[in-house]
Amino acid sequence: MEVRHVNMQSDNREPERPAHPRIFPAREAGKSDRQPAGRSVDFSVSVVLPAGGTGERTGLQTPKQFCSFLGRPLISYTIQAFERVSWIQTIAVVVAEENVDLMMDVVRRFQHRRVRVVPGGSTRHRSIYNGLLALGEKEEEEEEEEERPKVVIIHDAVRPFVEEDFLYQIAMAAKEQGAAGAIRPLVSTVIATTSEGYLDHSLERVKYRASEMPQGFTFDVIYRAYQRCSESDFEFGTECLHLALQYCGTNAKLIEGPPTLWKVTYKRDLAAAESIIKETLSRSACVVTGGSTEAVSLAEALRKAVGALEMELDVVPDLTGDNAGYLLTGWNFIRVSVGDSWLPEVEAVLVALKEANRALLHPPVVVWVRLSSADEPSVSGKVAEPAAIVDLASTAKLGNILLYGIQLHRSQTFWDLSRKKRRQD
Amino acid sequence: MEVRHVNMQSDNREPERPAHPRIFPAREAGKSDRQPAGRSVDFSVSVVLPAGGTGERTGLQTPKQFCSFLGRPLISYTIQAFERVSWIQTIAVVVAEENVDLMMDVVRRFQHRRVRVVPGGSTRHRSIYNGLLALGEKEEEEEEEEERPKVVIIHDAVRPFVEEDFLYQIAMAAKEQGAAGAIRPLVSTVIATTSEGYLDHSLERVKYRASEMPQGFTFDVIYRAYQRCSESDFEFGTECLHLALQYCGTNAKLIEGPPTLWKVTYKRDLAAAESIIKETLSRSACVVTGGSTEAVSLAEALRKAVGALEMELDVVPDLTGDNAGYLLTGWNFIRVSVGDSWLPEVEAVLVALKEANRALLHPPVVVWVRLSSADEPSVSGKVAEPAAIVDLASTAKLGNILLYGIQLHRSQTFWDLSRKKRRQD
Repeated sequence: MEVRHVNMQSDNREPERPAHPRIFPAREAGKSDRQPAGRSVDFSVSVVLPAGGTGERTGLQTPKQFCSFLGRPLISYTIQAFERVSWIQTIAVVVAEENVDLMMDVVRRFQHRRVRVVPGGSTRHRSIYNGLLALGEKEEEEEEEEERPKVVIIHDAVRPFVEEDFLYQIAMAAKEQGAAGAIRPLVSTVIATTSEGYLDHSLERVKYRASEMPQGFTFDVIYRAYQRCSESDFEFGTECLHLALQYCGTNAKLIEGPPTLWKVTYKRDLAAAESIIKETLSRSACVVTGGSTEAVSLAEALRKAVGALEMELDVVPDLTGDNAGYLLTGWNFIRVSVGDSWLPEVEAVLVALKEANRALLHPPVVVWVRLSSADEPSVSGKVAEPAAIVDLASTAKLGNILLYGIQLHRSQTFWDLSRKKRRQD
Repeated sequence: MEVRHVNMQSDNREPERPAHPRIFPAREAGKSDRQPAGRSVDFSVSVVLPAGGTGERTGLQTPKQFCSFLGRPLISYTIQAFERVSWIQTIAVVVAEENVDLMMDVVRRFQHRRVRVVPGGSTRHRSIYNGLLALGEKEEEEEEEEERPKVVIIHDAVRPFVEEDFLYQIAMAAKEQGAAGAIRPLVSTVIATTSEGYLDHSLERVKYRASEMPQGFTFDVIYRAYQRCSESDFEFGTECLHLALQYCGTNAKLIEGPPTLWKVTYKRDLAAAESIIKETLSRSACVVTGGSTEAVSLAEALRKAVGALEMELDVVPDLTGDNAGYLLTGWNFIRVSVGDSWLPEVEAVLVALKEANRALLHPPVVVWVRLSSADEPSVSGKVAEPAAIVDLASTAKLGNILLYGIQLHRSQTFWDLSRKKRRQD
C-alpha cells in the first residue's frame, strides 16, 4: 500500500507554533464536569479519518467532505478539530485514489501539519484498515522509530464538530476497555419490517441508541479484529464496534455525545453545517498586537473579559510566518495599535486579507483599536485620524472587508477592568 | 373539549379559489411512476397536526413550529402543504393552550381556510386524540352534517416538506390496510446497550427502518386504538402504528418516503429547513396578467416552457381579493403588461408588496414584461420607457424589492414557441 507523506516534521506536537484559532471554544474552566481543554493523556493517540465517500445522498457532484464553507472544505474543519488537541499525534486521512491530489492540496493550502494522506480501499472497512496500516508504519524520513499508537480514534470526515473534551472521554475509555463509541438517543422510533413491507414490531426506544462517531480502540483490538474478520465483513459490515465484539470479545463502552456529532448526510445538512460554522466563527477573533507590551496587556485583559461570553480570542504579534494561517481561517481580526504608526499597521492587515482572497462571499471584520499614549490630548482634539480611518473603511468595503475603528484614551475604566479580572483569577 | 373554529366556510374545497402557490412543484406529468398532482381520492380524508412541542431540543425560546422563515412561521408552510391538496378536507392543528391565540393569528394572517385550532393535551398521544375528537364533531354553523372522515392522516407540524403524491400513497394504503406509515432507511447503526452502558449487540441494519411521518389510519382503527389503550400508552407511548397493531391487530403498510420528510429537531435543522424553503421558493413565481387575452396566452406559454425546468408558475389576473394571499407567500412576481398602461400596473404591484411588509430580510423579485402591440415601433425607437422603469427600479431597491424589466416586441420567435408547445400536448 502506498502512503503519501505530506508533512515530514518529526515533532507532530509543534510546541513552538501558537494554538490554531479554536473554532469551537473549549468550555469554561468553571464547568467542572467537563474535561478542561489542554489536559493531556499519557499514552499515544492517533486518528483514522475515512473520507472516501462519494456524496451520493447529498445529490451533489462534489463529495460532501470537499464542499466548501466560507472558502474552506468541510474536511479541513474536521482535521482542524483534531489538530487543536495537543495530545493527538497523527491523522491518517483516507481518500479515494482519485482525490489524493485534491486532498494533498487542501493539506498544503490550510497548513495542516499532522496529516498523512492515505489512498482508500473499495469499502469503508477497507479504507479504515488502510489508515490503520499507515499509522503502524514508520515514516521514511523519521530518525526515531515511530511506535504504533496505543489508541486509535476513528471518526468521519463529515462530522466536523467534535470537541476535545469528548475526544478525551473516548480515548480514556478506549484505553481502559479496548473499545469505546459515541451514542445518541434515537430521533425516530425504529421498527422491524416484515419481508412484505408491513410493520412487524416497534422497538422500545429506551433500550436502543444510535451509534455515532468518534469511536476509539486500542490499536491491538481494532488491528486484530481486522486481521480476523471475513471478506463479507470487509464488504458489508457497518460497525467497527461490532467487529471488536465479534472477533476480540471486547464490549465497547458507550458514551453519549452532544447533538453536534451528527453526520453531514443530505444536502440540507450542508446548510445546517454552514450555520454552525458561521455561528461559532463569529465567536472567535484573532488579536494582532504588533508585539508592544501595552497592546499585549490590553489583549490579555480583553481575552479574559470575552471568555465569560464564551468567545475565544487568540493573541499573536503579527500575521506573518506561522501566524499567516489565521488569514485563511479567521474571520474577525482586532489590530491593536499604540502610538502614531497605526495607519500602515491597519493597512497591512487589510492588504494581507485581500491577498488571501477570502472576502468573496462572507466579509471578514477588522476592528482597529488605537490605544493613545498617556500624554496625548484626548480624541476630541484630533479630527484627522478618525477621517483617515473612515477613508480606509470605505476602500475596504469595496473589497467586502468591514473595518471599524475604536480610539481608546487610557482611562481609569480600562485599567479597572484589567485589575478586576486579575483579582478574580 | 373546546374546539375553536377558525373558518366557517362549509365548502372546504373552495373550487372558485385559484390554487395556492405551490411551494413544492408537482412532478411533471411525464414522470409517470408518480401520482399526478390533482388526481383525487373518492373517500374523505382529514388531517391531525400535533403542534404542541415546546422546542426543547432546538435550544430556542420559540417552539420550532412557530419559528419564522422569510417572515412566515414553519407551521404555516406545513399547513399550506396540505391545503394545496384538493382532496384534503379539514386540518386539525393541535397546539398547547397557551399558543391557541398565536395559532389563530397565524391562521388569519396567512389566510388558511381549512384549519381547526384545537387545544392540546399533556402528551403527544392526548393531543392527537383531541384532534381526532375534533374531526369527529360537527361544526356549529354547518348546514349539512359533517361525517367523520374515512381516513385520518397524522403528521408533524415540524415536517413542512410533504408532497401530494406521498400523501396520496399513504391515504390509499390506509384505506386499504387500516394503517400506513412513512419509513426511511436508518442513517446510523442502531445498537442495544447493557444496563451498565456497554454494547450488547448491534442490529442488522437491513431489517429495520426509522418510522417517520405522515401516517394514515382509517378513522375507525385509530379511534378504536385510543379508546382501548392504557393510561401508560397515553403517557409514554411514541408510535401510533404500534397502538393500531396492539389494540386493533392492524399491521401497518410501510412506505418509504423522500429524505425531506425529516423532522426539524435541533437548532441546526432550522438552517436546513430555511435552505430548502429558499431553494423551492426560487422555483415558483406568480404571473399577474391584468386579464388581457394576450397576456394570458403569454403566461400560459411561459408556464409550459418553465414546467420543463421543474419551475412552477401560477397565473392570476390581479393580486386583490382571494389572490392577495400571493403577496404574503410568493417571492417572485411577473407582471405582464400590454399597451401603454404599464407604469401604474407595475407601481401597483410594488405598492402592494410594500404594504404587505415582506421585504425586510429577503428581497421579493418583480419582473415586468411589456408586450408591445404589433403596430408599435420597435423598442429601439422608444427611450423614455426604459428610463422610467430604471427610475422605478431604483426606488424599489431602497425598499429591498428587486425590479427587472423586459420589453417583448411581438416576434415570430414568441409565437413559434407557443405553437410548438401546443403541438407537443
